[in-house]
Amino acid sequence: MAISSVRGTVGQVVRRRLARHDHPSVRHHGEVSRPTPHVRIDREVLERNIDAMQQTAEAAGLALRPHAKTHKSLEVARLQLAAGAIGLTVATVSEAEVFAEVCDDLFVAYPLWVDDERAQRLRGLLGTSVVTVGVDSVESVRQLAPLAAGGLRVRIEVDSGHHRSGVPAGDAVDVATAASEAGLAVDGVFTFPGHSYSPDARASAAADEQRELGAARDALVAAGVPCPVVSGGSTPSVEYARGDVLTEVRPGVYVFGDAQQWELGATTPEQVALTVVATVVGRYPDRVVLDAGSKVLGADRSSWATGHGRLLDHPDAVITALSEHHATVTGFDAPRGTRVRVVPNHVCNTVNLADELVLGDGTWRVDARGANT
Amino acid sequence: MAISSVRGTVGQVVRRRLARHDHPSVRHHGEVSRPTPHVRIDREVLERNIDAMQQTAEAAGLALRPHAKTHKSLEVARLQLAAGAIGLTVATVSEAEVFAEVCDDLFVAYPLWVDDERAQRLRGLLGTSVVTVGVDSVESVRQLAPLAAGGLRVRIEVDSGHHRSGVPAGDAVDVATAASEAGLAVDGVFTFPGHSYSPDARASAAADEQRELGAARDALVAAGVPCPVVSGGSTPSVEYARGDVLTEVRPGVYVFGDAQQWELGATTPEQVALTVVATVVGRYPDRVVLDAGSKVLGADRSSWATGHGRLLDHPDAVITALSEHHATVTGFDAPRGTRVRVVPNHVCNTVNLADELVLGDGTWRVDARGANT
Repeated sequence: MAISSVRGTVGQVVRRRLARHDHPSVRHHGEVSRPTPHVRIDREVLERNIDAMQQTAEAAGLALRPHAKTHKSLEVARLQLAAGAIGLTVATVSEAEVFAEVCDDLFVAYPLWVDDERAQRLRGLLGTSVVTVGVDSVESVRQLAPLAAGGLRVRIEVDSGHHRSGVPAGDAVDVATAASEAGLAVDGVFTFPGHSYSPDARASAAADEQRELGAARDALVAAGVPCPVVSGGSTPSVEYARGDVLTEVRPGVYVFGDAQQWELGATTPEQVALTVVATVVGRYPDRVVLDAGSKVLGADRSSWATGHGRLLDHPDAVITALSEHHATVTGFDAPRGTRVRVVPNHVCNTVNLADELVLGDGTWRVDARGANT
Repeated sequence: MAISSVRGTVGQVVRRRLARHDHPSVRHHGEVSRPTPHVRIDREVLERNIDAMQQTAEAAGLALRPHAKTHKSLEVARLQLAAGAIGLTVATVSEAEVFAEVCDDLFVAYPLWVDDERAQRLRGLLGTSVVTVGVDSVESVRQLAPLAAGGLRVRIEVDSGHHRSGVPAGDAVDVATAASEAGLAVDGVFTFPGHSYSPDARASAAADEQRELGAARDALVAAGVPCPVVSGGSTPSVEYARGDVLTEVRPGVYVFGDAQQWELGATTPEQVALTVVATVVGRYPDRVVLDAGSKVLGADRSSWATGHGRLLDHPDAVITALSEHHATVTGFDAPRGTRVRVVPNHVCNTVNLADELVLGDGTWRVDARGANT
């Protein structure tokens, strides 16, 4: 997918103009009465979150390379970079193509399988940006080798306990050596401690991350492969990251927060910057029904989640069921027509369902929505 | 959201052109090597599913009003209408605005809360189409009353056991009477037997549906409110629907099938018309990792599902974990670079994540993607 096809610039502009034109003056509770459901950003909270994470990282002696998959928005990326982020993390080549507009140092934190099509797109990116990609096998190194001449950098992915992708720390040196021999610049090691997304596992996952990354780094250095970057971090674990092992962190969700982070204790309700504004459309003796379902919130639900999202202003309410356009809520009552703010369980998937993020009096595009390739 | 803003016509056309231009001749395994992940349709299977459901409905003496929320595509709607569907079901006013292009008989099967903004849009639709909306309270009747003069029809929603929206059958007459008194044309009763989405509950949910709808119809008729339409049906329950109580059915998922229907026994693997084409990007001793995650498949997972989707050609494989761009698979092994077909758990959410559906040599737009309002 080329940059322009991801952005659909003309259509998006037309859409935004039409959306504004449709609701120029209707007001409701003091704000433009945009139809529900829609995704709303509290800019003040967002900017506070961005500044706070930058300070947390700097206080620990860590560089911050936020993951842009959460917001998928050039506007938010600009704020992160202005606050001091050294570059951006992305999950796909098409996200990299979008964010190359505002950032010339991009890390694709993913074990890419680079076929001819994707190689061509990476070459395009290398013309304007420093591009680093994740790699966790000798087979993938071989696929990447033709891009060495273009300056592609690679970073070795280590499995620190999440058991998704990545090699055991002891095997990182094999991949790194193969990459060096293929002429690829190895810039270091990274991991995603995804097992930090569990109650009471935040600190232990951070400890796993540091131990395994440290071991991988030491093995690389012992084998004569320099390892300047040791990259970890996720929103639940970043508070425990230490600069004596890691050199950078890559949290994503912190910009907006979500119900998962709220329930994990990594975000307070006051730090939630994104909500889905919904209307009570049904009221029954034991429940109300909202017009926000899985097609706007996403269907994520961890085994430990209390429900399918939370109501920001009614923390005792429970979203007991979610259909595509219905959220069933208990522990809360209000007349039909009442608007409420829903905190989605997993904000990254919520943003990816939206074309735009609504602020007080404007909108930001979700520039990389659907950028999966 | 106005029709044009839902469709984003110019941008979509630009996107499709670019997508075609980017990959005009690269071939892989005999097909255009479109980058993975992407959503693919088997048109032959799709058309067979459409014809089979039409025949099932007709054999039972039922009209078919398929739910368009599943496919969100004008092309698929055209096929359904050509096969004999009497109209379409939609979930939102913005979906109705999209499908008004191909259908002049639209049922919004949702307990709409109609504020000024939505009333204006319904008036626009009433200029070209027969429009019926769901209603399940006297309060909602009051909101809808100003649209009576424009010809808006209402259908009373009955709760047949799913306990989401709808009134108990015994209360349907109160809502119907209020609607009639407000000058709204009541065309009948409907329910969504969502509790049919459970192993071994398909037949019993269908029995609940018919019993409760029959009771509601009888109460309306006894109160002097004609009830020509008795509407039910969902893909898991439709096989049990009987024409002696119901007059129409509204299944949606049957057009494509999905892993939920496969595991419920409502769809066979041979009836699966939509898959997400994914690539093996990671291979480890106990698992492989695919590049299709929740941002293309959706995160739906019922408590009874065996995993986060299925592999169509490898029925013993289990998708044990799903991240935004990773599916972790056990019980299956293949080299990196291998392409596989993933059957999503809930196809309605998968389609809503895609801009286009890929066929053998072309694409169909997901015209109503994101049409949530």
